[in-house]
Amino acid sequence: MQFTAKQISEIVNGSIEGNENVVVSRVEKIEEAGNEGLTFLANPKYESYLYTTGAAIVIINNDQVVETPINPTLIRVKNAYTAITLLLDQYNKFRFHKTGIEEPSFIHPSVVLGKDVYVGAFTYIGEGVKIGDNVRVYPQVYIGDQVTIGSGTILFPGVKVYHDCLLGKNVVIHSGAVIGSDGFGFAPQEDGTYRKISQIGNVLIEDDVEIGANTTIDRATMGHTIIRKGVKLDNLIQLAHNVEVGEHSVIAAQTGISGSTKIGKHVILGGQVGVVGHITIADGSQIQAQSGINRSIEDPGLKWAGTPASQFQNQMRTQVVLQRLPDLERRLDQLEKLIAQLKEEKGSY
Amino acid sequence: MQFTAKQISEIVNGSIEGNENVVVSRVEKIEEAGNEGLTFLANPKYESYLYTTGAAIVIINNDQVVETPINPTLIRVKNAYTAITLLLDQYNKFRFHKTGIEEPSFIHPSVVLGKDVYVGAFTYIGEGVKIGDNVRVYPQVYIGDQVTIGSGTILFPGVKVYHDCLLGKNVVIHSGAVIGSDGFGFAPQEDGTYRKISQIGNVLIEDDVEIGANTTIDRATMGHTIIRKGVKLDNLIQLAHNVEVGEHSVIAAQTGISGSTKIGKHVILGGQVGVVGHITIADGSQIQAQSGINRSIEDPGLKWAGTPASQFQNQMRTQVVLQRLPDLERRLDQLEKLIAQLKEEKGSY
Amino acid sequence: MQFTAKQISEIVNGSIEGNENVVVSRVEKIEEAGNEGLTFLANPKYESYLYTTGAAIVIINNDQVVETPINPTLIRVKNAYTAITLLLDQYNKFRFHKTGIEEPSFIHPSVVLGKDVYVGAFTYIGEGVKIGDNVRVYPQVYIGDQVTIGSGTILFPGVKVYHDCLLGKNVVIHSGAVIGSDGFGFAPQEDGTYRKISQIGNVLIEDDVEIGANTTIDRATMGHTIIRKGVKLDNLIQLAHNVEVGEHSVIAAQTGISGSTKIGKHVILGGQVGVVGHITIADGSQIQAQSGINRSIEDPGLKWAGTPASQFQNQMRTQVVLQRLPDLERRLDQLEKLIAQLKEEKGSY
Repeated sequence: MQFTAKQISEIVNGSIEGNENVVVSRVEKIEEAGNEGLTFLANPKYESYLYTTGAAIVIINNDQVVETPINPTLIRVKNAYTAITLLLDQYNKFRFHKTGIEEPSFIHPSVVLGKDVYVGAFTYIGEGVKIGDNVRVYPQVYIGDQVTIGSGTILFPGVKVYHDCLLGKNVVIHSGAVIGSDGFGFAPQEDGTYRKISQIGNVLIEDDVEIGANTTIDRATMGHTIIRKGVKLDNLIQLAHNVEVGEHSVIAAQTGISGSTKIGKHVILGGQVGVVGHITIADGSQIQAQSGINRSIEDPGLKWAGTPASQFQNQMRTQVVLQRLPDLERRLDQLEKLIAQLKEEKGSY
Repeated sequence: MQFTAKQISEIVNGSIEGNENVVVSRVEKIEEAGNEGLTFLANPKYESYLYTTGAAIVIINNDQVVETPINPTLIRVKNAYTAITLLLDQYNKFRFHKTGIEEPSFIHPSVVLGKDVYVGAFTYIGEGVKIGDNVRVYPQVYIGDQVTIGSGTILFPGVKVYHDCLLGKNVVIHSGAVIGSDGFGFAPQEDGTYRKISQIGNVLIEDDVEIGANTTIDRATMGHTIIRKGVKLDNLIQLAHNVEVGEHSVIAAQTGISGSTKIGKHVILGGQVGVVGHITIADGSQIQAQSGINRSIEDPGLKWAGTPASQFQNQMRTQVVLQRLPDLERRLDQLEKLIAQLKEEKGSY
Repeated sequence: MQFTAKQISEIVNGSIEGNENVVVSRVEKIEEAGNEGLTFLANPKYESYLYTTGAAIVIINNDQVVETPINPTLIRVKNAYTAITLLLDQYNKFRFHKTGIEEPSFIHPSVVLGKDVYVGAFTYIGEGVKIGDNVRVYPQVYIGDQVTIGSGTILFPGVKVYHDCLLGKNVVIHSGAVIGSDGFGFAPQEDGTYRKISQIGNVLIEDDVEIGANTTIDRATMGHTIIRKGVKLDNLIQLAHNVEVGEHSVIAAQTGISGSTKIGKHVILGGQVGVVGHITIADGSQIQAQSGINRSIEDPGLKWAGTPASQFQNQMRTQVVLQRLPDLERRLDQLEKLIAQLKEEKGSY
């Protein structure tokens, strides 16, 4: 698709300096842009590229000073970063707004589909499923019996949603994510074997949640595993049975939360964090990457780090001293020798 | 589906107190149950909910004292927890016992299918595959050439089993798990590149194994990667080529085992543990979450923690002192000053 | 398939000792081989098995001394390990060289397919996709719009490649890997919610790259996430948006690299390593498993370990002393008592 400077300027409500008929076909970084490229300058660090970029159009802030004549057409806006974000959203909406049912797909006769839905080929939709308006289900998705999916939700190729799970509106789930697999529940038997505990709960995902590729969220043993409104989950995360993640919390890749733990609102968990089961993490907590959380965090809004985690400042101090640990031991050795010497000398008075 | 108190009581061999015709349609937690809910009371911690629950039916122990009149119908049994587990198993068996071949599916003409098998739509079954009785293969599963699958095994949607792998009876594999992908074997070349080593072994999974969502088990370079009878694997686990996991061992989510390592029987590995290659872990070892195991564990039945792991008690002691490390350094500083002072004073006698 | 000693000897350019008509049907380890087994002896550690193996044929080095008469037919070659590798490659090529289009599959009319391509059933190939010669796309793969795939590349069952990604020649991607999912980019808003930043870049994978099962590589926000020539990635790895991995680098399982980080050439990352965003790792760096890298590594060719990582030798020293930490504290306690005593005694002069 091609757009003129004039068309773009109208979308972002900007003013043009230069040729309004110049054409762009893609959005690129200012330092890499070629002659059909649209780019933007928002961060002063990149200002020098304004004079060297190969882009056809650059969106800049109204107050950006341009010191020498340059080749690209400029579009001036109040906030260049906001403008480009808006443009990208429009572009993605336009490009990916598929509708219709591709064949072959498997849709149980009892399924209720909303308006303007897209169902990709090789997707399977089970008995009693309800799908809202404008939902896009890409190819090779599995939706188990009795699942409900709110309007505007997107399931990328290969997502698996087990039976009975409930997904809200405008949820986005990336390829390979598994929603509603059995929780890891096995009762140890006297003979050393394990007996599976049937997992009959579900997963409840509220509105505006985004879930990354190959992330796994187990169904509850009973009741719900719950992902509250606005939560953002990165790739390869593990959420165990009966976990609850509070509103607008963010979890980075490869982090794992054990069973029945409750994460508060507006919590930020770094990547590769591990959290034990049956604890609570207070609202607004921030946990550094690779930390291990082994007990509840009760005071809200604090930063934590390390395994087992302690408050961030303490952890940083400990880590600094840790680098000197072999040195501390040498100093201790020396002190012991000195004191032995002092005692001996004293004995000789 | 709906059940009366009378029907449920017959399944669990219980005695009814109250209306035997009351109807339930789902199993819920005692604190959350609604008016078509069946629940149970096994843990005394939850006893107060017996008087407030909205459930229609509560299963309780024979010796449970009920102090005031309550609304729900009661079903008394010897062990309420065992009874509910039995009920859930029956319910799941009933609900998910699909059979038949859904279309479109791809089944090579040479495939041998047992009795009462379910094959979901978009599933692919390659040449020479043998599938036992009562096997359920959900939609979008891939089963490579020459794979054998024992009776009663369940492959959830999207499971991928590469060629030549052998699965036992009553194995359960959750969505997105990959069985038999190539081991990570590359021979470094003189020019700094790597040459792939063909991986021609397979994965051998014995009876009663359960494997979690998006877990990956690589095929052996030669011979077998082996998962012994009764092993339970959580989600997102990595088992490398030629690993062997002993009978009835349990591994929590996101743990990784490197190539050719042998895990003993009845071992428990916590989440996010890493184990290096070519070592052995003794029977009955218990490894705390996030530990790093870098050498063989020879004595059976011990607990380990930390990176590199040491025995649990030692590790706990070290971690406690670690919190005081900046303090230790300050004390050392002070001692050095004191001793310097003592020496100086001594010099002035 | 069966082969005689004579046929095998011709492939590996060896000389036969024993019956040239003996037949083998599989390759096995020397200690496990049965009477239709082909095996090899390259590592002197396994020499004793030469006299006990049940194999029908053993490939050995020209200079291998055989001290007593043995049962198997021997094939002598310059380098037994190289010979067996060659054989396995030939075998795999022969066994897995499928071609043709299986039905049902979904191939957009605009797709350009090269010669001798294999497309498995239930695979989806979107608009404008270009696929080179000899590419093998197994069943249940998703290839989004405008993707380009170079000749000789193999996509195993269930691989997902989002729109616009570019794959080179002779790339191998294992089941469940996701290429080009959205980067984890969300702008925090004043009301505590997050706003998605559209991710419009792609993933660029150069020639000879291998990617493990269930690994996820996010598309760039803008521009490219880049995997350079010859890189080998194990299973369950996370590469975030705009990451670049340099030529012939190797990354072990479950490692995660945060956004915009650049890994140099010939780097080796162990398993479960975490690397923060926006840093660079120098060429030839070697990072031990489970390390956490929180700042750039500028000097090439060094070894690193720990969280936060320090140079390997320092880290090893620290870890050794760490085991003695409770002991250090006791020694410090004792010194303090001794000094207090010395001071007191001095006061009494």
